[in-house]
Amino acid sequence: MIVALAGGVGGARLALGLAAELPPQRLAIVVNTGDDFEHLGLAISPDIDTVTYTLAGLNNPALGWGRVDETWSFMETLAALGGETWFRLGDRDLALHVLRTAALARGERLSDVTRLIAERLGVRHAIVPMSDDSVRTFVMTDRGELAFQDYFVRLRCEPRVTGFRFDGSENARVPPMLAALCSEANIEAAVICPSNPYVSIEPILTVQTIRAWLERRRFPVIAVSPIVGGVAVKGPAAKMMHELGFESSAAAVAQHYGDLVDAWIVDRADAALAHEIQRLGPHVEVADTMMTDAACSAALARVVVDVARRVRARVRPA
Amino acid sequence: MIVALAGGVGGARLALGLAAELPPQRLAIVVNTGDDFEHLGLAISPDIDTVTYTLAGLNNPALGWGRVDETWSFMETLAALGGETWFRLGDRDLALHVLRTAALARGERLSDVTRLIAERLGVRHAIVPMSDDSVRTFVMTDRGELAFQDYFVRLRCEPRVTGFRFDGSENARVPPMLAALCSEANIEAAVICPSNPYVSIEPILTVQTIRAWLERRRFPVIAVSPIVGGVAVKGPAAKMMHELGFESSAAAVAQHYGDLVDAWIVDRADAALAHEIQRLGPHVEVADTMMTDAACSAALARVVVDVARRVRARVRPA
Repeated sequence: MIVALAGGVGGARLALGLAAELPPQRLAIVVNTGDDFEHLGLAISPDIDTVTYTLAGLNNPALGWGRVDETWSFMETLAALGGETWFRLGDRDLALHVLRTAALARGERLSDVTRLIAERLGVRHAIVPMSDDSVRTFVMTDRGELAFQDYFVRLRCEPRVTGFRFDGSENARVPPMLAALCSEANIEAAVICPSNPYVSIEPILTVQTIRAWLERRRFPVIAVSPIVGGVAVKGPAAKMMHELGFESSAAAVAQHYGDLVDAWIVDRADAALAHEIQRLGPHVEVADTMMTDAACSAALARVVVDVARRVRARVRPA
Repeated sequence: MIVALAGGVGGARLALGLAAELPPQRLAIVVNTGDDFEHLGLAISPDIDTVTYTLAGLNNPALGWGRVDETWSFMETLAALGGETWFRLGDRDLALHVLRTAALARGERLSDVTRLIAERLGVRHAIVPMSDDSVRTFVMTDRGELAFQDYFVRLRCEPRVTGFRFDGSENARVPPMLAALCSEANIEAAVICPSNPYVSIEPILTVQTIRAWLERRRFPVIAVSPIVGGVAVKGPAAKMMHELGFESSAAAVAQHYGDLVDAWIVDRADAALAHEIQRLGPHVEVADTMMTDAACSAALARVVVDVARRVRARVRPA
């Protein structure tokens, strides 16, 4: 079983590639729920939905979030009624939020609702929230502590970041479904997708079982750098790194993760950093990491799986 | 102050006429909430919405419910996700339900939310739910007791009706807003709109303050018959009357209300029944009651207001 840890767009794209390369019984995609929130009474899980829509072939490539073939009547009317419109919800997207909210209100698990929705959309691989328990990311900034979506969407990542807090993570358990799919014994590799280290991957790592798997691991952890040529492919990762006093580079990201990662895959644009990263310990592979279409995602996934096999052989010689 | 008691389409059409004839400070439209229900986690108030959309000029005349210029992306997607689709919710309509649900969840009153929405849609007259407290209509049938929307929408009024129950009505209070607008002293007439006597008007009459106003009244009650030529203009009123052992006629409706009504307005098609109804006590006026457009609604409203004035003069000679 390969366990992929994923946030939003970058994570979803690598997950799409991994799903193309691996059969359903060999892949579990564990998704960040730290940026989940309740909005207009609806339970919104942005990263789960991005991964689900991407694997279902329904993601909106123009927006980078939400669904293809979306319509906006709800939002238009909400605006006319004076409702909150800073977080945009398409009419089709809304069906998913309403279904999820109703299911959670009935006491169903987020992981079960996520599976049901993914199945209905034709997704065969397991997309599993990192926890069914509420974990909420707060961003400490020069404007005070902000709920993640306030920072990310409403304030467009403008405040200067000083730190993060993952409310609820100390008691969050992995979903029973994930515990059933994966155990220390059957994980052959963990993949840290090219997602934001602070607000996409870190929340997942705070979940105790997942942290324990990684700390006691006898499998390799492979990471794909979310920073390419010094900038984040998408989102505020580079801005955050600067504000936290780091340079924004694939090497700085490698330093951030330390010995949690056994092998890095960095973009060809960062080939010159390979030695710097290798000096920190991990193996480094240089590859094309810009996943501009499904074929690129699949090609990168092949590199990931191949590196995992090679590093695994090195870690546990046959 | 003229107080109009209204259910869905017929009530909304007369309310539209009354609003055209009377200034906002002279009209309170009290709307049935017995068919309100929670669906997909959303608080749905079908009659309030029909009245609101009609007064805002946004009602969907083709459907008889919901909004004009509606789109159905949400419903299509919900169907694809395997969600419940027997109660259809348009994308624009949904904005109203989501806003209301969120406001109620925050502890706001249904009457305040209703006013806010109506104001945002440009409605100047008061549309007031009969109560902010939950009253739920159940229909006793040959298939057992059914929640109203189960009977009305899901089972398309097919079960044979034996009675009704208005759960919660014994403790339901009128909204503070309605108590502030109206008192026994300032009501000049009550109008029973051409709505279903059993499931639109009766729930309103079960609310204690409203019942007390009518029982102790020194103002006339004017009713417009919902039955024209022996059939209901819309909905299951005639079917219900048959199933309950009555004939479906304007005269039988008059008998149903008894001395609660001081003056009946019946359609020209039922002119021959005028004497039969007058023998029961009330004054009878014959008029065109088919409100096929806003002009017809206004014309009928003028008849209502005129009859109210005349009957009031008779009840309380100057």
